[in-house]
Amino acid sequence: MACQYACLTGTQNMGKVIDPSQVASAFRQDLRNKVKALGKPLKLVGLLSADSGPSATYAEYTKAGCDDVGIGFELRRETKLTIEAAIDKANSDPLVHGIIIYYPIFGTEHDGYIKDLVAPEKDIEGLNSYWARKLYHNQRYIDPTKSKKAILPCTPLAIVKLLDAAGAMNKAALSLAGKTVTIFNRSEVVGRPLASMLANDGADVYSFDLDGPLLFKREHVVETQATRAEALARADIVITGVPSREFPLVTANEIRASTVCINFSTFKNFADDAKEKASVFVPRVGPMTVTMALRNTLRLYDNYHRR
Amino acid sequence: MACQYACLTGTQNMGKVIDPSQVASAFRQDLRNKVKALGKPLKLVGLLSADSGPSATYAEYTKAGCDDVGIGFELRRETKLTIEAAIDKANSDPLVHGIIIYYPIFGTEHDGYIKDLVAPEKDIEGLNSYWARKLYHNQRYIDPTKSKKAILPCTPLAIVKLLDAAGAMNKAALSLAGKTVTIFNRSEVVGRPLASMLANDGADVYSFDLDGPLLFKREHVVETQATRAEALARADIVITGVPSREFPLVTANEIRASTVCINFSTFKNFADDAKEKASVFVPRVGPMTVTMALRNTLRLYDNYHRR
Repeated sequence: MACQYACLTGTQNMGKVIDPSQVASAFRQDLRNKVKALGKPLKLVGLLSADSGPSATYAEYTKAGCDDVGIGFELRRETKLTIEAAIDKANSDPLVHGIIIYYPIFGTEHDGYIKDLVAPEKDIEGLNSYWARKLYHNQRYIDPTKSKKAILPCTPLAIVKLLDAAGAMNKAALSLAGKTVTIFNRSEVVGRPLASMLANDGADVYSFDLDGPLLFKREHVVETQATRAEALARADIVITGVPSREFPLVTANEIRASTVCINFSTFKNFADDAKEKASVFVPRVGPMTVTMALRNTLRLYDNYHRR
Repeated sequence: MACQYACLTGTQNMGKVIDPSQVASAFRQDLRNKVKALGKPLKLVGLLSADSGPSATYAEYTKAGCDDVGIGFELRRETKLTIEAAIDKANSDPLVHGIIIYYPIFGTEHDGYIKDLVAPEKDIEGLNSYWARKLYHNQRYIDPTKSKKAILPCTPLAIVKLLDAAGAMNKAALSLAGKTVTIFNRSEVVGRPLASMLANDGADVYSFDLDGPLLFKREHVVETQATRAEALARADIVITGVPSREFPLVTANEIRASTVCINFSTFKNFADDAKEKASVFVPRVGPMTVTMALRNTLRLYDNYHRR
């Protein structure tokens, strides 16, 4: 799988910067073909409550991605007080195959309640607790015959695909066996599911956040005394997603020359010298996140709507 | 219903302070009789990850409450990393009738995930999204014949019972019709469910929190331009739950003399002159919260275990 992306094939990837748009384009081509082969209109509904800012931009990217692969996209502008009824309506509309919500809606813990209102079979973001539990129990299929794959959250899935594109995965089934990963961010939306996914694939994952470090090892999560310096020195892969200017940037002398580095924060988390030292550096994830959302739309259609 | 508490019967409640322990004692007597009549052991399991602080104290109060009414209580000391397995174990144990988790476990949004792991039929706190949705859709029963009542979260339920004890409810079925309530706190655990419950019972509820005011009116939640001063001047009932010393205390000149005031924060939210001016003042809710947790344990038994 690591060699499927023309942009990287046959190189050692030394000092390479990966453009996620380029990796996304291979996936988009595949999606375009599959959507075309369906011969039926697929419809994704986006619910936006804020008028501007990052969420409106993300909605525009979703629209462009849908146009690109042939999925119908309808953006519905809601308020925080109409969002629940809008979700109910989209949940029960048989012509809607996927729902994406542009957070924040309330910007409080109320958003956690909203996340769970989206029907799992339309939750292309994989944020519903139904999908979260599948992930945290390493249940990769939704049917006993293992023909229908579970939905994974878009940004963590995008990062896994980018690691693959960076040549960071083994070719074996357990694609991260023997690898050490260090992640800065343990949010419920990205950092924790990502740590769990990489550990499910065999990696030892050091997960840092404000409430301290944890070590994810296969199905277990354990306390660790590892310091930032130790976890970085051991890491084959370093992933950052700290939404703050206060985060001390990861520097070249903290990482190894063979390290693959990915940042998914909108803030800079790596010092320039670390970007240069890294074997592969991925400066952003966004275009792949959108592409994985489209991929999940098709997967949900396959799982729940295809006859 | 407003007259069932001996401590208040026959008074005008002018300037009265209500001790929630005294109100709780009537409920506890009723529970004691019902548990005895069951003739079977009821078992509640508490899961505690912190060793000290408010959650350990709450666990002690639960133990004392269980002893008082004849419910078996077992406190299991867990860590944040064993809590999920501990919940699974209690969920699947037919000898466990109720589960209570002493938060914080992680103290992050991870706790929202944990809340939803508790099986609804053992969730005596009513915090699971299954119960939250019932409440927010004003679905008061779990069966079509309306014989089995839905579980309501303990602290909001405790506050409703204290309002009843304070003589603040109408005797009509729609017990808060025509009343105005102002609440400072819109957390998912207390403030929002409380606002919804009081609006379901007919009140106009002004709900204030850091992200602005909202007005709950029956099944609708709408934006409001009402200021704190306006909402307080209109209020028949003022409920505070602001966990901060920064909150400007509610003062006597902001409220009416007929106002019933309840504080559920561990911080002081009313100035002394407001406590004196209020027709009834309830300084804390805790003992009633524990009692409602025990009441929910019995209700879950009736709903799911009784043959």
